[in-house]
Amino acid sequence: MKIINQQQIMDSFDADSITSLLKSGFIAYSRQQVQQPPVQHFLFKQAAGDCCIKSAWLEGDEQFVVKVSAGFYRNPAQGLASNQGLLMAFSALTGEPQALLLDEGWLTALRTALAGRIAAELCAPADIPAIGIVGCGMQARLQLQQLKPLTPCRDVWLWGRSEAALQAFRHDAETEGFRVHTTRDAAALAAHCRLIVTTTPSREPILQAADIQPGTHITAIGADAHGKQELATDLVARADLLLVDALSQCADYGEIATAYRQGLLTSKPIVEFGAALAQGGTLRSSPQQITIADLTGLAIQDVQIVKGILARL
Amino acid sequence: MKIINQQQIMDSFDADSITSLLKSGFIAYSRQQVQQPPVQHFLFKQAAGDCCIKSAWLEGDEQFVVKVSAGFYRNPAQGLASNQGLLMAFSALTGEPQALLLDEGWLTALRTALAGRIAAELCAPADIPAIGIVGCGMQARLQLQQLKPLTPCRDVWLWGRSEAALQAFRHDAETEGFRVHTTRDAAALAAHCRLIVTTTPSREPILQAADIQPGTHITAIGADAHGKQELATDLVARADLLLVDALSQCADYGEIATAYRQGLLTSKPIVEFGAALAQGGTLRSSPQQITIADLTGLAIQDVQIVKGILARL
Repeated sequence: MKIINQQQIMDSFDADSITSLLKSGFIAYSRQQVQQPPVQHFLFKQAAGDCCIKSAWLEGDEQFVVKVSAGFYRNPAQGLASNQGLLMAFSALTGEPQALLLDEGWLTALRTALAGRIAAELCAPADIPAIGIVGCGMQARLQLQQLKPLTPCRDVWLWGRSEAALQAFRHDAETEGFRVHTTRDAAALAAHCRLIVTTTPSREPILQAADIQPGTHITAIGADAHGKQELATDLVARADLLLVDALSQCADYGEIATAYRQGLLTSKPIVEFGAALAQGGTLRSSPQQITIADLTGLAIQDVQIVKGILARL
Repeated sequence: MKIINQQQIMDSFDADSITSLLKSGFIAYSRQQVQQPPVQHFLFKQAAGDCCIKSAWLEGDEQFVVKVSAGFYRNPAQGLASNQGLLMAFSALTGEPQALLLDEGWLTALRTALAGRIAAELCAPADIPAIGIVGCGMQARLQLQQLKPLTPCRDVWLWGRSEAALQAFRHDAETEGFRVHTTRDAAALAAHCRLIVTTTPSREPILQAADIQPGTHITAIGADAHGKQELATDLVARADLLLVDALSQCADYGEIATAYRQGLLTSKPIVEFGAALAQGGTLRSSPQQITIADLTGLAIQDVQIVKGILARL
């Protein structure tokens, strides 16, 4: 079994080829060509940690992938990363272990950021006066980076709860060539931005329906478990179109879950990434539409990013 | 992360200390002190393979375990073992990967054999004229080995479908000090034996109710997925007592599943290993009882055997 460390993984990473693999993975998922058993979850209450185990096989592939991905939120105080975990590839012909990727959560972060890029490709308006990023963590930075090839817009609004985190993020975004506005008022961000990405683990809505301008696209990354929600339920209900990575997951514990359960989305188009990508083109049919993409994360994304890394090793 | 190969694993294996860990694991499981998410299953039809992913954490432990365990039944034709897979231990305090055990299925085989030994301790009659082993594979050999410390009986009946496999097993069992009778007639085996272990992946019953003598204990290992069954439904229904590793799994896809679904077990004592072990003593209350133990395999067994190996490394 090959053992691949984080540096080797980063050296083999190519955003464009992996984006294209992710797209074909989403399409295969929506065509039910992926075996993807329900996610296994652990909660380590006393250690403020959680862990999920995701695995998938794209039928016909010569390998399948198992990912163990943990978050332990007091790790930084001990000098350790919050995100821990690894991915493994096994032969789908013999069951033999083939590769162990010690990515420390990096590939999960990247495949999530690239899914954000795909969501923006499918839904963002043509004219973007400013990008809004909600949250100041690693995923916030990666989302902003991955949006650069998609738009010439270099104005960005950053929202966060801590002034220190906002200033650190400002510094990084300026280094990337952005003109940065920081705010602790999410409504101010929404007033200026037409492409917004939310990246927090918040359990209460940060953006309200009244804040959002017509013609805005929002990609909601944070809600990936019961109880998490970044967008007000009436904002989700007000969207003209909802894009979801997997309807089964999003309706259960994603950003749209509350509105879905309350029956507010019954007359709303809800489109899976795979269906939208198979159809081609953009989903947005008018510049005034409000669109929301809900990402909960699929094991098929892990399969595809591992495939992309192993192909270039 | 420590990487531990099969030889190191075998060198660190101690049956008695691991049996005792398995017992405390079963007890914790039945007391609901174990986080053990539902098993993930894959089916690789064209390659004649399957894979399951089992994981568990005994609450309070400093580590949790994830196991990937595959069976690819055409591997031997390519000179590869049918059983493939590995186990991993992660910190339950920080999420960091701690150990990778490249056991090639050996630990799963052993923890299953030791559960068979525990079942015999709990249910076997005092007087065993002969042991019966149904099936000729590795698990059959391990079960026989692990029963040696429990009984002075050295007469064994072996049942198999292939004469060549039976003769190979005869040779190994004689080397272990047994007097061996081979048969392709399961009823003949049942007529002579009071402690029987069934170890095949059969999908049709091998032992019938009419074959079994009063006072017999049967441990059924093979049925671990929908559709597998080694004992006739009326034999399960005729037992005086059923011992199960996990009621939820056994009633769903274990040896007792068909009888359970047909409502034939409603007035039957069904006892979990953990409950029986917590109570202490033997479950058998009379020498004439027919008892059946149904083993589907629990992730907590993997947790405990990994603990036992790592403690002696």
